[in-house]
Amino acid sequence: MKVKVSRKAHFNAAHRLHNPALSDSENEELFGKCNNPNWHGHNYDVIATVKGTIDPKTGYVIDMKVLKDIMNEEVIDRFDHRNLNLDVDDFQAMNPTAENIAVVIWNRMRKRLNDNLELSIILYETERNFVEYSGE
Amino acid sequence: MKVKVSRKAHFNAAHRLHNPALSDSENEELFGKCNNPNWHGHNYDVIATVKGTIDPKTGYVIDMKVLKDIMNEEVIDRFDHRNLNLDVDDFQAMNPTAENIAVVIWNRMRKRLNDNLELSIILYETERNFVEYSGE
Amino acid sequence: MKVKVSRKAHFNAAHRLHNPALSDSENEELFGKCNNPNWHGHNYDVIATVKGTIDPKTGYVIDMKVLKDIMNEEVIDRFDHRNLNLDVDDFQAMNPTAENIAVVIWNRMRKRLNDNLELSIILYETERNFVEYSGE
Amino acid sequence: MKVKVSRKAHFNAAHRLHNPALSDSENEELFGKCNNPNWHGHNYDVIATVKGTIDPKTGYVIDMKVLKDIMNEEVIDRFDHRNLNLDVDDFQAMNPTAENIAVVIWNRMRKRLNDNLELSIILYETERNFVEYSGE
Amino acid sequence: MKVKVSRKAHFNAAHRLHNPALSDSENEELFGKCNNPNWHGHNYDVIATVKGTIDPKTGYVIDMKVLKDIMNEEVIDRFDHRNLNLDVDDFQAMNPTAENIAVVIWNRMRKRLNDNLELSIILYETERNFVEYSGE
Amino acid sequence: MKVKVSRKAHFNAAHRLHNPALSDSENEELFGKCNNPNWHGHNYDVIATVKGTIDPKTGYVIDMKVLKDIMNEEVIDRFDHRNLNLDVDDFQAMNPTAENIAVVIWNRMRKRLNDNLELSIILYETERNFVEYSGE
Repeated sequence: MKVKVSRKAHFNAAHRLHNPALSDSENEELFGKCNNPNWHGHNYDVIATVKGTIDPKTGYVIDMKVLKDIMNEEVIDRFDHRNLNLDVDDFQAMNPTAENIAVVIWNRMRKRLNDNLELSIILYETERNFVEYSGE
Repeated sequence: MKVKVSRKAHFNAAHRLHNPALSDSENEELFGKCNNPNWHGHNYDVIATVKGTIDPKTGYVIDMKVLKDIMNEEVIDRFDHRNLNLDVDDFQAMNPTAENIAVVIWNRMRKRLNDNLELSIILYETERNFVEYSGE
Repeated sequence: MKVKVSRKAHFNAAHRLHNPALSDSENEELFGKCNNPNWHGHNYDVIATVKGTIDPKTGYVIDMKVLKDIMNEEVIDRFDHRNLNLDVDDFQAMNPTAENIAVVIWNRMRKRLNDNLELSIILYETERNFVEYSGE
Repeated sequence: MKVKVSRKAHFNAAHRLHNPALSDSENEELFGKCNNPNWHGHNYDVIATVKGTIDPKTGYVIDMKVLKDIMNEEVIDRFDHRNLNLDVDDFQAMNPTAENIAVVIWNRMRKRLNDNLELSIILYETERNFVEYSGE
Repeated sequence: MKVKVSRKAHFNAAHRLHNPALSDSENEELFGKCNNPNWHGHNYDVIATVKGTIDPKTGYVIDMKVLKDIMNEEVIDRFDHRNLNLDVDDFQAMNPTAENIAVVIWNRMRKRLNDNLELSIILYETERNFVEYSGE
Repeated sequence: MKVKVSRKAHFNAAHRLHNPALSDSENEELFGKCNNPNWHGHNYDVIATVKGTIDPKTGYVIDMKVLKDIMNEEVIDRFDHRNLNLDVDDFQAMNPTAENIAVVIWNRMRKRLNDNLELSIILYETERNFVEYSGE
């Protein structure tokens, strides 16, 4: 029996949408107020979903505490109370849109999980805007 | 890399579940208090999910502001503070169940999006009742 | 020891903001899209808060089941899946704004509670708009 | 047109994570504070999602009241205000992890639904921990 | 300037409503399914609100981390994943109704705060049932 | 009859807790990771509550649209997608703690409301941390 197990975590971060390969006016046109050079920020919610078979010994697909620890080490400890553009290596050459943040989180967590587990990441930038990446 | 991008919006509307092809007693038996001839109403939440590849220039699958504008033009401006049965053309010959409202929203938004983008619509009628349509 | 005990319930209703003592153009100017003659509607959430002393026998200020029954009889059974203007006597001569609905609910529930209990009503018209009446 | 219809319900229950085939020290190591022999408990939220074609007569995939009744009979009436390990037959020989509870709910509801309807169960153990089972 | 500062925490616990001074039949009549001798449980949310003047040096009424630590030491570490009736000294001779749990939490936290700070406790037993105690 | 009317809005901003009158090490000791010189950010929710008598002509204490416009002009248009420390005049000489932000919002909105209306501001910095200021 295959079950999806999900764990929610959150981090608070500053960012700015900006593509350094483009001019300032192109950036402002593309990203509007999200391009503010003085930054803005969000309370991000991230949901990691792991799909696999139930271990008959434990009744778990994966121990939620293990999943929580991986999320803390790969995401929260690196992103929380940081400036994504300035403080996080992953975004030195990548625009920290919700889409790209989800991909970065998926890549970080994917290498910590066994190959027989599938992974999907949902990232809420606000209550109204969210994205999902499943490695496709 | 394919990512799903979701945007939530809401509208407040009156409606009545009623199939004009059936008798009054059949309608009352099928729809109970939802068939009240004086109408009732809901705060509807609608989530539009668009799946596509990330544009490397912007880091976007679709600009959330574009998605928000399409939702406003096709759904909110037409449905908000209206009587779905009386004021909205789509439901002149269609019972405004949550299922049918989701199909109507999907059809309206589908023709506004590029063919390489997939679309899915979730409609919450109440916090406890919701439906999803993906064009299947 | 005085404790406040709160119970949340909800009802779905149609309404229209309209003061019959005013002209149609005055009503439209005052109430805008909320004055739509074909009605609109909401999922209303109502929170009744009762303040009193803890009964040492039960550890209750009031049995939540009793509070729930009073809310059902005085509010939900009368308002749910109804048109507030047409179907509910209380609003035959009163504009069903959130403020007035809260006052009506307070008056209905007040007479069902012992005099040593204080009552307050919070009414959510949407997640973003809500009112509170305490009999002041 | 195929639509997913979802209904949310909840129950409050006590449980303990414990595999009787293992020693006490193994159980404590595997399940930590969730293995407390005096039990702990949760407000469980369960979402049942049914996928099928819209009936043109009603505009329904399934009447929400029918879905609600099935959830009440198969889940809420059996699990609410109970000790899952002691009071519910399904967990006499099965560890009541979120994964296993979702599988039990799916099996109970599956046999009450027509074969042309697909079923999926989401179970929230807390706001941050949830699982999904679709019969795979 | 006096400001209220609030912090939310949660704990998962088992309990049973039962007054040992009463007979079994009286307990069952008073507390119904909440009297189940095999226990049930809840995800409790607790909000501690502290009112005081803003310290001009920090801009804080109280450091949220201090408030969080007090809540962890006095409430979460003692109540989480426990049986309130069996495992928590405070309820050896007191029925763990929501009202009484709020009073116990208030008493525990009150003695940890400076006299110039006012304290109020809100306890959610479910999303629909909650209580508030302010030391009155 | 006096009723409280509440309206919720939100803004996304970057900030840093920092008292320029103190040394860097004092700031780091007082504010920890919230003192990060590269900023972090939040999705702030703000609830403005206005208390007054119901106008018998409209059934309103205050038109929600008027309250919404005042919130937009005094708060959202100035704070949203900004760096509170760098971009907002009010915080040039004031540490943007939740407490101080609530006081600034109250002062801005107070001068826009009639004297017969009372005002209270609730500010959520995260779902778990929030403050309230009523002009006391």
